[in-house]
Amino acid sequence: MTDMPDLDALLAVAHRLADAARPETLRHFRATGLAVEDKGGTGDRPGFDPVTEADRAAERAIRDLLAELRPHDAILGEEYGESPGTSGITWILDPIDGTRGYMSGTPTWGTLIAASRDGRPILGLVDQPFIGERFTGGGGQARYDGPHGTGPLRTAAPRELSRATLFTTFPEIGTEADRAAFARVSGAARLTRYGMDCYAYALVAAGQADLVIEAGLAPYDIAAPLALVEAAGGIVTDWSGGDAAGGGRVIAAANAQVHAAALALLRG
Amino acid sequence: MTDMPDLDALLAVAHRLADAARPETLRHFRATGLAVEDKGGTGDRPGFDPVTEADRAAERAIRDLLAELRPHDAILGEEYGESPGTSGITWILDPIDGTRGYMSGTPTWGTLIAASRDGRPILGLVDQPFIGERFTGGGGQARYDGPHGTGPLRTAAPRELSRATLFTTFPEIGTEADRAAFARVSGAARLTRYGMDCYAYALVAAGQADLVIEAGLAPYDIAAPLALVEAAGGIVTDWSGGDAAGGGRVIAAANAQVHAAALALLRG
Repeated sequence: MTDMPDLDALLAVAHRLADAARPETLRHFRATGLAVEDKGGTGDRPGFDPVTEADRAAERAIRDLLAELRPHDAILGEEYGESPGTSGITWILDPIDGTRGYMSGTPTWGTLIAASRDGRPILGLVDQPFIGERFTGGGGQARYDGPHGTGPLRTAAPRELSRATLFTTFPEIGTEADRAAFARVSGAARLTRYGMDCYAYALVAAGQADLVIEAGLAPYDIAAPLALVEAAGGIVTDWSGGDAAGGGRVIAAANAQVHAAALALLRG
Repeated sequence: MTDMPDLDALLAVAHRLADAARPETLRHFRATGLAVEDKGGTGDRPGFDPVTEADRAAERAIRDLLAELRPHDAILGEEYGESPGTSGITWILDPIDGTRGYMSGTPTWGTLIAASRDGRPILGLVDQPFIGERFTGGGGQARYDGPHGTGPLRTAAPRELSRATLFTTFPEIGTEADRAAFARVSGAARLTRYGMDCYAYALVAAGQADLVIEAGLAPYDIAAPLALVEAAGGIVTDWSGGDAAGGGRVIAAANAQVHAAALALLRG
């Protein structure tokens, strides 16, 4: 265990990192002729995994600033992998979560920045540069800054699953067994919505949605959303109710009641 | 046939109508405790069709302004139905297209305003008030106004279906035969994205997506997107290649080539 970190100081750094990434992601968003490479699929993700110039430029901008502001912290980034550190803090970065949405002009991709200690995300930031929205959370407090105002974030109060709104990114989620499990929850929920990537977790933190259920996530996909949703009052676990920080099959819920109801159906 | 209308004058009216609707839709967006009624499903749409206060208030604001600015035009609106007119122009209104997205806090719903003559949409406006984006088209010209700039809209140049991005709102689109037809196109496309409602048509107009394929649309769902996509250089038809202005099963394409390729697969 390391000493308790200064969350306010880490949050101030996270804001600066997100500010540094914004021009890099915005420069290429909706630009014609965006060069897209195919990294190839891994695990149970579909085979098309685009990487763009913007992804890499944004992660470089964040890493350059971390080298200046927090030279002793470790980094785990989607594009450039792991860099060791000695402080006990690891920054977990996904410069563009929702690359497919980014590529198709959809304004619901995000830059994800988390600070983790002892394998546990303690601070999370989800930034949507095009709209100008930022969702941050840590230490039991979560906050929103957007084009129409700013304020605290709080997840939704408990309601029956039959009144709940559920998000996932792909209807073709995970394995066949994963899809069957997801269908049990989807069939019980009032509304199932698709295609939002990290933005769906932000909507849970903001009290607009009750559940996000996904499979095949990487650690850098879930670290920031996990810390954000927890700080806003929600619960994020894997589909067995265990730690979700490693990625894989993840459920984020607005409260313990809807989490328990959905988890029971996921287990079948 | 009526005389050729003054498109610039109609466009100026459309902007004022969208301006009038914005405060009504924004007032309730992401507000907690939004009252949602269930109108019940019709045709091949899912059974849950929420109507919100915002829908009705926005349509009333538009109708009030039309009564002042264009008292001789007819109106067809999602919430308040048909009002007769004598000018030959009909305004076709969907105050909130994508009510499900609106309800769940997603910023990709839109206010749809079209002007139609002799059953044909000649001007279309798609407004996204939360982001502050407006897409307009008519008379072979289309234009974008957004938070990061303004400029002309142009659909994407032809590319193989295997390189194309396809949007639809629901993976559970239409009937079983509809889903099989959709799956043929989806299987041939590079990328299939969900959940964007009218915003997907705006992305086709903006050259960001190649195709939108949907089923079960109402006339007020498609009038404005149809005029917008056509004005930006695209093609909008039903799945048989015929007129799409009546709604139903619709395909919007960036250009004639990708339209033909997708239509061939839809027909099976």
